[in-house]
Amino acid sequence: MNNSAPCVILVEPQLAENVGMTARAMMNCGLSELRLVNPRENHLSDKAISASSNAEEILYNAKVFTSTEEALANLQWVVATTARHRDQTKTVLGAENAAKLMAEKIKAGMFCGIMFGPERCGLNNKDVCLADAIVNIPLNPKHCSLNLSQAVLLVGYEFYKTQTECKKDEFVTNNTTPATKEKIFKFCSFLEGLVADCGNFKDDEKREKLVINLRNVFTRNQLTEQELNTLYGIINHIRKN
Amino acid sequence: MNNSAPCVILVEPQLAENVGMTARAMMNCGLSELRLVNPRENHLSDKAISASSNAEEILYNAKVFTSTEEALANLQWVVATTARHRDQTKTVLGAENAAKLMAEKIKAGMFCGIMFGPERCGLNNKDVCLADAIVNIPLNPKHCSLNLSQAVLLVGYEFYKTQTECKKDEFVTNNTTPATKEKIFKFCSFLEGLVADCGNFKDDEKREKLVINLRNVFTRNQLTEQELNTLYGIINHIRKN
Repeated sequence: MNNSAPCVILVEPQLAENVGMTARAMMNCGLSELRLVNPRENHLSDKAISASSNAEEILYNAKVFTSTEEALANLQWVVATTARHRDQTKTVLGAENAAKLMAEKIKAGMFCGIMFGPERCGLNNKDVCLADAIVNIPLNPKHCSLNLSQAVLLVGYEFYKTQTECKKDEFVTNNTTPATKEKIFKFCSFLEGLVADCGNFKDDEKREKLVINLRNVFTRNQLTEQELNTLYGIINHIRKN
Repeated sequence: MNNSAPCVILVEPQLAENVGMTARAMMNCGLSELRLVNPRENHLSDKAISASSNAEEILYNAKVFTSTEEALANLQWVVATTARHRDQTKTVLGAENAAKLMAEKIKAGMFCGIMFGPERCGLNNKDVCLADAIVNIPLNPKHCSLNLSQAVLLVGYEFYKTQTECKKDEFVTNNTTPATKEKIFKFCSFLEGLVADCGNFKDDEKREKLVINLRNVFTRNQLTEQELNTLYGIINHIRKN
C-alpha cells in the first residue's frame, strides 16, 4: 500500500473503457493505487488495457471489492466526489482545498482515498455517508456532468499540484541567450542609420517618433542573440538586392 | 465572437470522438468557441456528436480552417499547449498562471485563444512559433501523454477557476442546523448519567477520563440537532429493550 498519494476508489464503474482511461489519468497525476467496487465490466479486458494507454500496470494492480465498506476499510480519510448536493450533513470542500488537506494528512502518515461513483448517476447516499468530506469540482453549473476519468483527472491534477513545486514561468532560449541591451540598442541605431541614409530623417519630430517606436518594438520582445543575428542577416540581404 | 472566454483551436485533430469530447470538456468549463484546423474526420459525425454528451451546440458552431494562421487571424493573444520543450525562444507558462494572464487580457478586451495539437504528436514547431507563449500543464513527467480532450479540460478548468469566486468550503446541514454547545453538553451529561447509573463511575480518575473522552467525541464532529435527536432515540430504544 502506497502512502505517498491517495488511492482512487471507483464504485460500480460501468464501462471498462472508463476504468482504463481512469488508470491513464491516474498515471498522469502520479497516482498508482486503484480500487474497484463491483465493476460491471472486466477491468483487464482489451478495451480497458487499450484505453489505459500504457498505464495498464495500474489496472493489473487494481483490487476488486464487493462492497464500498471493504474498499475503504484500511483507509483513514476518504473524500467522495459528487456534483450534486446531497441530503447529508457533511463538509463540502472545493477540489483545490480538498487536495491540499489530503496532502497534509498524507504527509502526517494517514492513508487517504478519493471515491468516485458510477458514470450514469454518481455516488449514492449510502456511499457518500461513508466519506469524511464531499469534494466539489468547480465547473459550469449548467453542464457539470463529467466523464468519470475526467473527474479523476481533475482531482488527481489538484493533488499533483500540491506535490510539485509550482514551476516558475520561464523564458526558454535553448542554445542562445537573451541579447544584452547594448546589442539591442546597437541594432536599433543600425536601423535608424539605414532610414537616415534613405533621406527620411529630415523632420526632427518624425525622427524622434520613429526612434522611440523602433526601440519600443525591439525591447518589448526580449530578443535573443540568435534572433538579432537573424534580423541583421535579413536586412543585409535586403540591402544587397 | 465571444470575448468573455478564450476560444479553443484544435490543429489537425485526428479522431472525431476526441473533438466531441473536447466540446464536452469546453462546455464543462464555460468555453464555447471551437476552431478546427484541417480535422481528419467530420466533427459533425454521429461519433463526435455522441461523444460531446449534450455539448453538440459547440460542434455545430465550430469553424473549420485550412491553416493555423487563418484560425488565429482575428485573435490577439494565443497560447500553445505542449508537453515537450521546443527548440524555440518562447515564454513557458504554467497552466494556472497562463489562465490568470489570459483572464486579465480578456478582461482588458483582448481576443484570446488556446491551441492544441494532433493527438499523436502535439503541435509542430511551425504552429508553436505562432503563439505568444507556451503553456505547460504540470503532470507526472514520466507519463505526461494526455488525451486531447483532457488537455482541453485541464486548461479550461484553470480558466474557469479564474472566473468563479473560489467557493468557500462549507458545512452542509440541509434541513437541520448545527447543534448548540448547550445541547451537546446536555447530551454528554445524559450519557454520563447513564454510565453512572450502571455503577461504573465510582473511580474518580476513570470518571474524569470518560467524561473528557465523551465530550471530545461529541464536540469534534459538529453534530446537528437532527443527529442529536437520532442519538437520543437510539439510546432510549436500547434502554427500553
